[in-house]
Amino acid sequence: MPDTLVVGLDVGGTSTRASVLTLDGHRVGTGRAGGGNPTSHGAERAAAELLTALRAALTDLDPTRVAAGTIGLAGAARLLADPQGRVAFDRAWHDAGLRCPYTVHGDALVAYASGTAAPDGTILIAGTGAITAQVHDLRLDRIADGHGWLLGDAGSGFWLGREAVRRLLADLDAGRGLGALATTVLTELLGSAEIAPRARDTVDATIQAVTRRPPVDLARLAPLVVDAAERGDEVATALISQAAAHLSTSVSRIRPAGAVTPLVLGGGLLTADTPLAAAVRVEIARHWPDAPLRTAGDGAAAAAWLAARELPETTDPAALHARLFPVG
Amino acid sequence: MPDTLVVGLDVGGTSTRASVLTLDGHRVGTGRAGGGNPTSHGAERAAAELLTALRAALTDLDPTRVAAGTIGLAGAARLLADPQGRVAFDRAWHDAGLRCPYTVHGDALVAYASGTAAPDGTILIAGTGAITAQVHDLRLDRIADGHGWLLGDAGSGFWLGREAVRRLLADLDAGRGLGALATTVLTELLGSAEIAPRARDTVDATIQAVTRRPPVDLARLAPLVVDAAERGDEVATALISQAAAHLSTSVSRIRPAGAVTPLVLGGGLLTADTPLAAAVRVEIARHWPDAPLRTAGDGAAAAAWLAARELPETTDPAALHARLFPVG
Repeated sequence: MPDTLVVGLDVGGTSTRASVLTLDGHRVGTGRAGGGNPTSHGAERAAAELLTALRAALTDLDPTRVAAGTIGLAGAARLLADPQGRVAFDRAWHDAGLRCPYTVHGDALVAYASGTAAPDGTILIAGTGAITAQVHDLRLDRIADGHGWLLGDAGSGFWLGREAVRRLLADLDAGRGLGALATTVLTELLGSAEIAPRARDTVDATIQAVTRRPPVDLARLAPLVVDAAERGDEVATALISQAAAHLSTSVSRIRPAGAVTPLVLGGGLLTADTPLAAAVRVEIARHWPDAPLRTAGDGAAAAAWLAARELPETTDPAALHARLFPVG
Repeated sequence: MPDTLVVGLDVGGTSTRASVLTLDGHRVGTGRAGGGNPTSHGAERAAAELLTALRAALTDLDPTRVAAGTIGLAGAARLLADPQGRVAFDRAWHDAGLRCPYTVHGDALVAYASGTAAPDGTILIAGTGAITAQVHDLRLDRIADGHGWLLGDAGSGFWLGREAVRRLLADLDAGRGLGALATTVLTELLGSAEIAPRARDTVDATIQAVTRRPPVDLARLAPLVVDAAERGDEVATALISQAAAHLSTSVSRIRPAGAVTPLVLGGGLLTADTPLAAAVRVEIARHWPDAPLRTAGDGAAAAAWLAARELPETTDPAALHARLFPVG
């Protein structure tokens, strides 16, 4: 059946991406829509974004040619447990003209599959939050962290942003001159790095600027830490080292010492060429010197690959993966 | 004027206390009412509690005999900056029959004054939150921490509670058996220390039990850490040590090395005979071996003492303080 297609979706908090593939590894359609995470946006809204992305990806294609589909999203377990969410997704699937069944996987599994075809390994994700998972037979197995900003996500973008503010406040309390990172953080929060005659007024204004917004917004300061570290700022470099150590500790909680299965790095802080990605690579190489280290790629294509694997026509999933994700 | 009286109020989040003193150091009236912190309860409600406590303390006393008054409360600066709050407090003062002026001080200054009559020194408070202040001429001078649970309060009750949950989650992630502290924390949060067949379900339930309530409620777990440390639990003991180090670091930010002025310990975690109080004493003695170490006492009496100091009749404020707060 050379006409057979598979579809994959990567549903994130800020965007939903769809990819349609042939079984010999050609991308014949892509689509994009707004954030569709049902946990943060509600199942109806998420399903609407899903439909938009699907329709764009299926433009000029016959949807009945699609033989399998996979949706990757955060909080997959919660969607599957909620009948209303499942109904909304079923309807979007049907409205896009799709007649095949679909499978829902956690975004961590999809990120893993975008980095390797190996059935067993580890995925470490650091973006706004941070989570690590062991993958067994291409299913999520044990998980470490992903506990959210209040209790965890150690080494994440939220963590970096919060720690940057904490260092700034400590400098203000101690009456120390502000370094490069503290100066940019204060400017970002208050529009100026000028310190009030009573330093405590600047402390209070800083705290208010942070607490006016949802706590998770502290993650928006993470790029300032990354930039300052790239320019050699000592405080930022120390924070990056600590974040890398936290992430490595999370991996250690669930990945056996001496494991040689692949380890995939995902999330905005680890897929870009950042000092944090570099520091994490060093930590991982120190603990698991023989593990292949991969970087997560296109999640929608990985979801489509997971769908293709389930079809009897896909005789060599690893070869298909290699065509979709050539190792640079 | 042997008939002259002074009144002091200690306005806290959970209770408001009033104390009426003669200038020779006799407590002739006390009153108590509900939480009256205007930041958390609103100025009108705070003023109503203030009036209740004042009326109780002035029972059978002629309020026109009161020559000076002091109110100690958290967020004093904010009350003074808010005309409505000031009006509500003025009205309560007047409705209690008082005709003298009153002064508003931060609760940290009142806690300091309940431990020493020395005009210069340091107050370190650890309760739900944590704050340190330098006192100069019996006014709050530089401040360290008190940054709130999201950004600071390192070593506080909130901090101890959050860290206890974080250790529990790390144990669950790693599949480690739970120690004494983790077991009591899990039982407190979920009603049982039984771990689900999928440990991640217990992780999720724990996170939900915490995030269902306001974050600051994590402080209610602090007594579990204190109890476990008293029974020798290693994790709890390590957390207590870290909390003591955090508190000592906050003090270091504003108190000069080698200072010999008194240092007063306040807040529920440091005024009781807890392992944290003991650990903080060790840290303080290591950094400032020659500093007198005191414990905060009755805040309402300290507020009344601050009021008495302002009267010309009070010729020896230190002697009055010694009568009010005999050093055990």
